[in-house]
Amino acid sequence: MITPPDAIAALDESDPLAPMRALFDLPDELVYLDGNSLGVLPRGVSERVARIVNEEWRQGLISSWGGGWIDLPTSVGATIAHLIGATPDEVVVGDSTSVNLFKCIAAALHLRPERRVIVTEADNFPTDNYIAQGLAELLGDYQIRYVAPYEDPADALGDDVAVLSLTHVNYRTAAVHDMRRVTTAAHDAGALAVWDLSHSTGALPVDLNAAGADFAVGCTYKYLNGGPGAPAFCFAAQTLLGEARQPLSGWMGHMDPFAFGPDYDPAPAARRFLCGTPQILSLGALSSALELWSDVDMIAVRRKSLALSDLFMGLVDEFADEHGLEIVTPRQHERRGSHVSVRAANGHAVMRALAERGVVGDFRAPDLMRFGFTPLYTSFTDTWRAAMALRDVFDSHAWRNERFAQRLRVT
Amino acid sequence: MITPPDAIAALDESDPLAPMRALFDLPDELVYLDGNSLGVLPRGVSERVARIVNEEWRQGLISSWGGGWIDLPTSVGATIAHLIGATPDEVVVGDSTSVNLFKCIAAALHLRPERRVIVTEADNFPTDNYIAQGLAELLGDYQIRYVAPYEDPADALGDDVAVLSLTHVNYRTAAVHDMRRVTTAAHDAGALAVWDLSHSTGALPVDLNAAGADFAVGCTYKYLNGGPGAPAFCFAAQTLLGEARQPLSGWMGHMDPFAFGPDYDPAPAARRFLCGTPQILSLGALSSALELWSDVDMIAVRRKSLALSDLFMGLVDEFADEHGLEIVTPRQHERRGSHVSVRAANGHAVMRALAERGVVGDFRAPDLMRFGFTPLYTSFTDTWRAAMALRDVFDSHAWRNERFAQRLRVT
Repeated sequence: MITPPDAIAALDESDPLAPMRALFDLPDELVYLDGNSLGVLPRGVSERVARIVNEEWRQGLISSWGGGWIDLPTSVGATIAHLIGATPDEVVVGDSTSVNLFKCIAAALHLRPERRVIVTEADNFPTDNYIAQGLAELLGDYQIRYVAPYEDPADALGDDVAVLSLTHVNYRTAAVHDMRRVTTAAHDAGALAVWDLSHSTGALPVDLNAAGADFAVGCTYKYLNGGPGAPAFCFAAQTLLGEARQPLSGWMGHMDPFAFGPDYDPAPAARRFLCGTPQILSLGALSSALELWSDVDMIAVRRKSLALSDLFMGLVDEFADEHGLEIVTPRQHERRGSHVSVRAANGHAVMRALAERGVVGDFRAPDLMRFGFTPLYTSFTDTWRAAMALRDVFDSHAWRNERFAQRLRVT
Repeated sequence: MITPPDAIAALDESDPLAPMRALFDLPDELVYLDGNSLGVLPRGVSERVARIVNEEWRQGLISSWGGGWIDLPTSVGATIAHLIGATPDEVVVGDSTSVNLFKCIAAALHLRPERRVIVTEADNFPTDNYIAQGLAELLGDYQIRYVAPYEDPADALGDDVAVLSLTHVNYRTAAVHDMRRVTTAAHDAGALAVWDLSHSTGALPVDLNAAGADFAVGCTYKYLNGGPGAPAFCFAAQTLLGEARQPLSGWMGHMDPFAFGPDYDPAPAARRFLCGTPQILSLGALSSALELWSDVDMIAVRRKSLALSDLFMGLVDEFADEHGLEIVTPRQHERRGSHVSVRAANGHAVMRALAERGVVGDFRAPDLMRFGFTPLYTSFTDTWRAAMALRDVFDSHAWRNERFAQRLRVT
């Protein structure tokens, strides 16, 4: 790989988070800018998973449930709490983000029985909207009101709205909502606010309780590096926990799961948002992956995230016009998450060509190239190399030939 | 451990399934009769999980989704199909048994919109009933009708019943329902039948399609040995798949998950019963654990299961009366699953004393000792040793002293 100029190397040398890169087991010679989709393997996770399989399962067998497994959904939830501005007993881990979102929207509707509208965004992450659609269809007389891109969700609120369900950082553009302002607007309209933190948690500081958020869900396999499909978290504000009910009332959310009583009696605190038996191998891997977060300073993470994306956007700006690229991620710091999306007519082919050059990002149809910056292990050198590789793709003979061939096909 | 008499050793010698025990990594010197709660570790699983972590995740990173992970929910479902009398595209794997039961009951209610009753059993596995309760409460005007123990569920059917939700093999007593008869009765009453196969799959032959079952769910960490909390399966009959809808409509159940379209459009076949991103470490372990089932003869499994439980019950009968024990598992073969439950006033203490003697079963409050027989790795010698250890507990000085002390406390 090419050596970066001194100015870039200097940024890495003065980066206070640079030593954290050693906590991850990164493939050699790869610039990985897709940690916003699947985070890399933290060191120690492999050993932890092997211990679960070969000692806890093989040797401990059923006794391992009492030896710690049964508490993982709450104990792992508690370790996430400080990253999202929650108290430890407001967060549990289990099921997928989609399933947890179903629970949260249903719980919110239960608390606003006289209202019949769910507000979300047209360009919310699709599965979030599919879940709202599934719930609305199940219940029969509910409506979903879609906020158009770039419109303010607060403007869609009214006295018919039960719940506002938004993703904090948009999965395509990385645009960030002002959680506090929008939540306050929801409350002022008598609605509850449910936040999807999938592209926020571990990427930038989040303070659910300061914002007054009611419910939240989030993914753990992106910035938290919990492993492929790692179980999601679920937050319910302490203030609501006396009355919040969710319909996926499985035994893990029961007040006393091992009493095997006939009727569901919800557990106190967020544990009532659990449902069935947790998938221990995946949950145990996440538990191990979260250890390195215990003393991460999210202010430092945010500062580096913005510095990385500023650098990347600045470098791409130099050749964007020439190649018809458009950076769709907001320029203002307070409006930007931790990835940068670039619109390109041939984005899919560009990402493939980048991968051949050892740079991995991802592509979202029809035309968005996404580059995720994960400050714990992305370096300024990585960022510079990615931008240089992108320029190199467009400058390459192969690419020019392909474009030329395409023009021939079009005409 | 004590040597069994020749007659017992001879049973193992002539057991056609005996060689399968070598496919499992069993702890030394342990008689494990709790495979109906958590199955043991099959050989090869540990290596498969290590490969997922260290190669597919660490090295392949995001590309591993396209390299096989994304297909696991359907491909693993297809490998379970032959064990439950389903076609490969009627079964998917993901989420927990509880979450899948919610989907199935909701799908059944959707198909019977004019009916408002869910029939289940009072002594069904509690979480199954909690799920029905959660769904009924969410929908508002539904009732749950509980069939009392030992009553025929068919007698609770009527033209108000939308769905009959039963567990095939009772988790406490191991009593088995006649799936075909009860399903036919449900259909005759205009209702749909949902079966929980958690204590059936891999324990005895199941033929969902021959019975005409509509929906089914089941656990994979018991007789299938998929690992702690391994994801559950979900079956939907081909005949219903055109019209069946379930409300947990996440992206994995979408016709085209990667199109990221605005509206949910259910996939064909049982894939529409998937929801969010699958937990790959747990699902991959299950995938590996299922390999050994590809040529298992379920008739042979059933034959051995009954022989093991017959042997155990016969041995326990010899000292049951003397110690106030009652075998609550049905004696007739066709009414019995693959575990034996024994009622004992001090059952919890007895199970602890058994564990000290290297025999592991489990206990279900208030007074049931459960002994699970998993024919692929339980031997006749194991079964004999368990019964002998049980007798030894009652004969021991410690136990007699404890009973004596208890009598003193009581008086």
